[in-house]
Amino acid sequence: MKARVHVMLKNGVLDPQGEAVRHALGTLGFDGVEGVRQGKVIELDLAETDSAKAHEAVAAMCEKLLANTVIESYSVEVL
Amino acid sequence: MKARVHVMLKNGVLDPQGEAVRHALGTLGFDGVEGVRQGKVIELDLAETDSAKAHEAVAAMCEKLLANTVIESYSVEVL
Repeated sequence: MKARVHVMLKNGVLDPQGEAVRHALGTLGFDGVEGVRQGKVIELDLAETDSAKAHEAVAAMCEKLLANTVIESYSVEVL
Repeated sequence: MKARVHVMLKNGVLDPQGEAVRHALGTLGFDGVEGVRQGKVIELDLAETDSAKAHEAVAAMCEKLLANTVIESYSVEVL
């Protein structure tokens, strides 16, 4: 079973990486880019076959390792 | 208009970040994680209001800046 996790900085947390991308896009002539936020996507191959259990396990992984919940939010998608 | 870009390493390209996550999950007691791939997700706020044009512009941004197409593949989603 596959799962996908998105980890993004919470709103209001400064995102220097996103700002750098926005600036670089402007330099390259891409106008009309009003904001950029950059985050991580993590794709997991799981042995688990029950989708509810897989969701629960991946959420626990996020809390413990994949996301810094002080400044980042995550969303789990079981595929 | 918002767009989301996923940038992942192509299959067959070594992903040391993903490997490190897989190993760390094992150390924390999460069994049954068979593989991990880590990529980037980039969320863009665009002034463009036409979804086809927005898609085209974002694909051009990926080719020029957001993805290294030698080793990375990208997918564009206009929201």
